[in-house]
Amino acid sequence: MLRLSTLFVRTLREDPADAEVPSHKLLVRGGYIRRAAPGIYSWLPLGLRVLAKIEGVVREEMDAVGGQEVRFPALLPREPYEASRRWYDYGPNIFRVKDRKEGDYLLAPTHEEVFTLLVKDLYSSYKDLPLVLYQIQTKYRDEARPRAGLLRAREFVMKDAYTFDVDDAGLAVGYENQRVAYQRIFRRLGLPTVIVSAVSGAMGGSRSEEFLFPTPVGEDTFVRSAGGYAANAEAVTTPVPEPRPIEGLPAAHVEDTPDTPTIASLVAIANERFPRPDRPWEAGDTLKNVVVVLIHPDSSREMVVVGVPGDREVDLARLAASVAPADVEVAEDADFTSHPELVRGYIGPSALGVNAPDPGAAPRYLLDPRVVAGTRWITGANGAGRHVFDLVAGRDFAAAGTDGQPTVEAAELREGDPAPDGSGPLAQARGIELGHIFQLGRKYSTALGLQVLDANGKLVTVVMGSYGFGVTRTMAALAEANHDAKGLAWPVNVAPAHVHVVATGKDQAVFDAAERIAQGLEGRDLEVLYDDRPKVSPGVKFGDAELLGVPFVVIVGRGLATGVVEVRDRRTGAVTEVRVDDAVPAVAERVAEALAATRIHPGEGMD
Amino acid sequence: MLRLSTLFVRTLREDPADAEVPSHKLLVRGGYIRRAAPGIYSWLPLGLRVLAKIEGVVREEMDAVGGQEVRFPALLPREPYEASRRWYDYGPNIFRVKDRKEGDYLLAPTHEEVFTLLVKDLYSSYKDLPLVLYQIQTKYRDEARPRAGLLRAREFVMKDAYTFDVDDAGLAVGYENQRVAYQRIFRRLGLPTVIVSAVSGAMGGSRSEEFLFPTPVGEDTFVRSAGGYAANAEAVTTPVPEPRPIEGLPAAHVEDTPDTPTIASLVAIANERFPRPDRPWEAGDTLKNVVVVLIHPDSSREMVVVGVPGDREVDLARLAASVAPADVEVAEDADFTSHPELVRGYIGPSALGVNAPDPGAAPRYLLDPRVVAGTRWITGANGAGRHVFDLVAGRDFAAAGTDGQPTVEAAELREGDPAPDGSGPLAQARGIELGHIFQLGRKYSTALGLQVLDANGKLVTVVMGSYGFGVTRTMAALAEANHDAKGLAWPVNVAPAHVHVVATGKDQAVFDAAERIAQGLEGRDLEVLYDDRPKVSPGVKFGDAELLGVPFVVIVGRGLATGVVEVRDRRTGAVTEVRVDDAVPAVAERVAEALAATRIHPGEGMD
Repeated sequence: MLRLSTLFVRTLREDPADAEVPSHKLLVRGGYIRRAAPGIYSWLPLGLRVLAKIEGVVREEMDAVGGQEVRFPALLPREPYEASRRWYDYGPNIFRVKDRKEGDYLLAPTHEEVFTLLVKDLYSSYKDLPLVLYQIQTKYRDEARPRAGLLRAREFVMKDAYTFDVDDAGLAVGYENQRVAYQRIFRRLGLPTVIVSAVSGAMGGSRSEEFLFPTPVGEDTFVRSAGGYAANAEAVTTPVPEPRPIEGLPAAHVEDTPDTPTIASLVAIANERFPRPDRPWEAGDTLKNVVVVLIHPDSSREMVVVGVPGDREVDLARLAASVAPADVEVAEDADFTSHPELVRGYIGPSALGVNAPDPGAAPRYLLDPRVVAGTRWITGANGAGRHVFDLVAGRDFAAAGTDGQPTVEAAELREGDPAPDGSGPLAQARGIELGHIFQLGRKYSTALGLQVLDANGKLVTVVMGSYGFGVTRTMAALAEANHDAKGLAWPVNVAPAHVHVVATGKDQAVFDAAERIAQGLEGRDLEVLYDDRPKVSPGVKFGDAELLGVPFVVIVGRGLATGVVEVRDRRTGAVTEVRVDDAVPAVAERVAEALAATRIHPGEGMD
Repeated sequence: MLRLSTLFVRTLREDPADAEVPSHKLLVRGGYIRRAAPGIYSWLPLGLRVLAKIEGVVREEMDAVGGQEVRFPALLPREPYEASRRWYDYGPNIFRVKDRKEGDYLLAPTHEEVFTLLVKDLYSSYKDLPLVLYQIQTKYRDEARPRAGLLRAREFVMKDAYTFDVDDAGLAVGYENQRVAYQRIFRRLGLPTVIVSAVSGAMGGSRSEEFLFPTPVGEDTFVRSAGGYAANAEAVTTPVPEPRPIEGLPAAHVEDTPDTPTIASLVAIANERFPRPDRPWEAGDTLKNVVVVLIHPDSSREMVVVGVPGDREVDLARLAASVAPADVEVAEDADFTSHPELVRGYIGPSALGVNAPDPGAAPRYLLDPRVVAGTRWITGANGAGRHVFDLVAGRDFAAAGTDGQPTVEAAELREGDPAPDGSGPLAQARGIELGHIFQLGRKYSTALGLQVLDANGKLVTVVMGSYGFGVTRTMAALAEANHDAKGLAWPVNVAPAHVHVVATGKDQAVFDAAERIAQGLEGRDLEVLYDDRPKVSPGVKFGDAELLGVPFVVIVGRGLATGVVEVRDRRTGAVTEVRVDDAVPAVAERVAEALAATRIHPGEGMD
């Protein structure tokens, strides 16, 4: 039994100064976690109990799909990560360590490499496959901006699973099994999630999907169409229009366009002084050239220019996903000094990429996929107060620079944009990424030489998948999904206790009765948090019960004189009076019902 | 059920090349663990199961003494460890990390500082105490020489507990509770341990004891007397003789002593040419001056000379414990170049410490406690082939250098040396340190400002204890204690399974019967490892069963024709035949009996 008189917990009335989102505020205020450093948390007894329960659900569902639990080190040598290039690709995002002999180590963000090596070490035949391994383990990522408590931490708990198959068909089965396991986990936790297509980033591989918990506090933007398309905004590709005939288009002409600080003012002047015969100029006819800096994994900075239709902003997250493993920053004044030919506000294609007088020295020029051959644009003419009109893509300018990336997904998505699969207009929302599953294919097995003999005695490269699940982040998502203004309201199967017994007042009979009820509930294998603090006011006790969020609260107090206690449902606030002698069986029954509702049948899971 | 046809394990016939001790060899050969880097291991499914069971026992006994489980980060910021000085004192023994903002972090070896800070953060009154917190967590130590598998690893699992009390009497109770909990844990694990007095090293604090598992492969030397004294060799103090009268002793005289490369040859020449009237010269009358180098936490090297009676060697481990937090190395040729006055083989007090012509420039001179005033010695005269006779301590020379440490425990212990408490002669043995408990006192609470209000409203500094338990190391000790030439032989309560069912031959009926028995045992809540591999020879299967070490092995094979199966006791090798229909209840009963034998009563524990 957890007794509040001795339990290592202190509730706080004030939100912690650094907390922005409800889960962060409430988990700290409720004494579940405590900040040790930016993005690094200590787990107090109540927090550890919730975490263990989430881990338990994850473990059961991993075991159910044939997963075998292992545990790998967090501290790993550089070599395998060098073979996969991730030592470089992760750049400043991993913690690097030197040992006393100057050997290079890292704190692993995920473990593809060492799982691959271990399977290579132990297995050699197709008969050994398929194989599903997983671990629940502490992971590290040196986030640039740790925030929101457990939502973006630098030390966190993940379940990471890996499948090993002899062919793509096997991978498809392993991937689907994990996908179902994730759906079952989230259903058991009562956490709604959306499965969206994703980009695989530094992980490599082909198909990948994310499990997002939709919430405005989420960092990920995702889109959905009525026709069933769903993707992380970073993974959405722009439908590329058909090229148009260039012949017959007017010649480009440079014009003075003073006082055009905005796209709108430029469009207004264009319509006033150079009207189109067919329709008015629109913002989408202007080509906006945005200067950004790519930070490559070796920390080198490269200035590039991104051209997007003037009616859209550049979405740095989408751009970053397109140029991974590089990171993206907005260009600063200092970045412009080495390129005096770029006149800010009037940057145009003639100074960029292959169009520049010296393409080798000019910034790379990356274009939105909508800028196909034959489209005509108003854009900067590389002189203050001057724009060029009727600049035609494929005739007057082209994308790319020295390494020839032709187009880039950098423009923001908009409500109503068409889904890339033609399934209708897109709606946008935000969410928290809780799971991410990848069909890795042969990236790691090729890099590290994992092959087995097939049925014909021929060596084949093993096909892999990897499946991440944010355990601590899921705890934060559960807090986001289950709270109100007063505090947390845990689902019964992850709550730190099933029942919170509160003794109020100073009457010894109250404490005796509360103790008996708490003992009785524990005798029925329920987990009980008992507020036995002798000199704490009922108001403080009720406030703590609401903050801590145990699903059923039994209040023993004044009613005892007439032989009753109150049972409160934390979530609904509903209060029922029960006879003190019936309290134990009545509460036990409600807990049992609530727990039963969280169970799902073995075959269940597919959406 | 664990099926060997799919279980992620491969047994090895050969010992791994880097393995010296049985636990290391067998845990790797049995597929329990696998090396990922020096001193860093991956845990395979069987290893993780054993580890979890050991953790379970530790958790139960910690909970039984009021411990509350929490979990702290492994990655911690420098500041608290700077306040306690451990950031410096640990020198190269901790892994240090810089984050992307050049902030200093470490991978914690233990967590005194952050536990202290958290209690300071949450608690403020004597009413909140006593408090017992613990965690079971992955820890890091950058060992100079990781070796012996889990016995000296760089990443390992520890249980670390901390007690917080308002006074010394409270600490004594908390310390005793942990001590009993440790005794109960080891008793439940069937692991004999010796409790010895210890030195606290970089931890600070006063009383401390170690729990050692006695084994010749252990790295720690400990001593015991028949009268009940027991200590780590590093903690043994030498009884200091009474000073003797100086008056009347002969004057020192320097003599040519050619051809005296050894103590024995020096003693022989002394007896031949300068005989004592009272008794012959002995090796113990010579004063051997050994040059060593202290490596201070800031990595600076200091040459010092240690003077010990010539009949004893310098024990570097004992010396290191005496000069902690400095480490000790044998002096190399290069170290001598800055001290040409030291003539190797003939070094004597006249060139050392306070006796030197320029004491500030001379090496510090640390003396064995036996070198009390009035003792007379033969020792080097700082010239090739020359020794000084009748050099009298307190008259002709003294210990120490600039910082005045007078004596040092550096001489080796010998079988039969007197116990410091007068309880009789000491016997020596070796052991593995599995637990180490410390009365920290106020070291950390003072450094970090942990105070509470006492009953009189006065601020008092909290008194702390810390209690380490090597979980992964205990697994290795269990393997050391439970193996034979053929493999492991786990105690039933930590074995990866209770029963190993082996189906031999090619007969489908055998596999059907074995499957039924395995299912039947599992139906009785036993953990079953079933060797269902279809094309593996009985010899290989038996060999694997003996290597893996599950305590009960059921062999289903030829006997099936006459309706019997064999039940083998892994440890004794005893084989009994049982009717196939009785196999499940018969084996279940034996497992239940074996498990019952590992249970101890709530009050048990004290030795």
